[in-house]
Amino acid sequence: MAKKKNQQPVVKANNQTVELPVPKGKLLAIGGKESKSGEEQTEVQRLSKDFISEEILKRFVKELRGENPMVAVLPTASGEPDESAQSYVKEFKNLGINDVQVLDIRERADAMKEENCEIIKKAAGIMITGGDQLKLTAILGGTSFLETIKERYTFNDFIIAGTSAGAAALSTPMIYEGETNKGMLKGDVRITTGLEFLKNVAIDTHFIQRGRIIRMAQCIATNPGCIGIGLEEDTAVLVTEGRHVEVIGTGLVTVVDGMKITRNSIYEIETGEPFSLCGITVHLMAAEETYVLPVFNQLHA
Amino acid sequence: MAKKKNQQPVVKANNQTVELPVPKGKLLAIGGKESKSGEEQTEVQRLSKDFISEEILKRFVKELRGENPMVAVLPTASGEPDESAQSYVKEFKNLGINDVQVLDIRERADAMKEENCEIIKKAAGIMITGGDQLKLTAILGGTSFLETIKERYTFNDFIIAGTSAGAAALSTPMIYEGETNKGMLKGDVRITTGLEFLKNVAIDTHFIQRGRIIRMAQCIATNPGCIGIGLEEDTAVLVTEGRHVEVIGTGLVTVVDGMKITRNSIYEIETGEPFSLCGITVHLMAAEETYVLPVFNQLHA
Repeated sequence: MAKKKNQQPVVKANNQTVELPVPKGKLLAIGGKESKSGEEQTEVQRLSKDFISEEILKRFVKELRGENPMVAVLPTASGEPDESAQSYVKEFKNLGINDVQVLDIRERADAMKEENCEIIKKAAGIMITGGDQLKLTAILGGTSFLETIKERYTFNDFIIAGTSAGAAALSTPMIYEGETNKGMLKGDVRITTGLEFLKNVAIDTHFIQRGRIIRMAQCIATNPGCIGIGLEEDTAVLVTEGRHVEVIGTGLVTVVDGMKITRNSIYEIETGEPFSLCGITVHLMAAEETYVLPVFNQLHA
Repeated sequence: MAKKKNQQPVVKANNQTVELPVPKGKLLAIGGKESKSGEEQTEVQRLSKDFISEEILKRFVKELRGENPMVAVLPTASGEPDESAQSYVKEFKNLGINDVQVLDIRERADAMKEENCEIIKKAAGIMITGGDQLKLTAILGGTSFLETIKERYTFNDFIIAGTSAGAAALSTPMIYEGETNKGMLKGDVRITTGLEFLKNVAIDTHFIQRGRIIRMAQCIATNPGCIGIGLEEDTAVLVTEGRHVEVIGTGLVTVVDGMKITRNSIYEIETGEPFSLCGITVHLMAAEETYVLPVFNQLHA
């Protein structure tokens, strides 16, 4: 899709117009199972003519700014945080990053510690691992640690990467449960607010592999002002200036747009009944395709 | 969706206008695993507030015309045709049909036998079982048996039901392979012509359960003049007058419409590369929703 001219977002209140800051940072949201060195290839990686080993993490490294950039790894979402963190420490060292620091945040008290904020202030980027996205929002929501990351993202050329749960938590609304029934029945998808680096955008992961378009459609049905971004495994979006989206990796990104829906039964039916939603617009995008989010990331607005 | 006024389809050739016959018969395309008596419930059947045991097969019986209607069962697609046929004989007898006749067609020679055509001439409806849709087209294509079914469908109130492979074979194009990679890579979906009771309609089954929307999108990308109908398990569409579609059953029907696509890379990329397709319109429809196919079933045109 053609890249539209960027416009400064404005908020109008009390007859005043306030310009919102365009974030200087970047987001790299990954659909899970991104290629790492020494890992066995998935079927699609093996069959795809365009597969590049470690393509997404190489791009993360390429986007780091400064000499000898330091990368912070946040394994809070993981059930095995030490192992999860070490796999990224090893991978980034393979990719030429000498300084990789692990943020050992397992509960809210850890997210209040100054030492962890200091790591973020010195880092060129952060990698948020997979696991359970609810741990990320429940442990980080409202902490000084999260505020520090938001400041870096807003005012500096700082990159935030998240894979699987780490990607799902970046935006809001955040889907955190709903594998049963594939989300066909009303109430079968659990949604809460995410970490809000993007607003009015729902990011879901393992999207094609786990057949998650129906649960995304139910999320969009509850508020068609949101855009759904479904990330397949080993596939990512790089978001710049809060809204310019570029696809990277082996698979497809699925954009689900409900703004032109013509029929929506979600408010007419009871919990446990199947919902209808007609007129959804869907874009399937392979690597190098671009997309502009219609709703601007309104950080701090 | 609102039911549009039916228009007689016309073909223009040599400055003449030919009216095509509106089929008097009905099609009942089922996404597989339709509820039968004495079978264990699936998760969605157990959780859905609207689940009705044997709802789809009861509707088939209700649509049969005549006194003491005879039902023919065609198990040609199945790897175990005797067992497959007997499960439907038992089910229809439970539902009050005393006369159920099995069409023992295992190769093309069987589809030329007059006795099988005679069964179709006397039947009020036919049930085509699941299995491999390629067996249905390869064994029945171009036979007098298929011609007899088409005549009944065109000129009589005759109902043709097909489940899984039996549903996929009803229309054309017919997807017959492509579970690998979920269809993200060009060439990963195998398509041929189906039995053509509907034209320019691709029917795929087990659609949500097996996450098949990407393979359908690739089929539509190769010719956006086709409409994709994705049937979930225990979910069906009843098609009357060749184009009026009504949803029946527990799950959702997914309609994939590529007529407004804005970007399609399928002809620019090589086999084995991921494709992009933007601007797809998708409708998710629960039971009782209706839809009108934009392209008429042009039987014998």
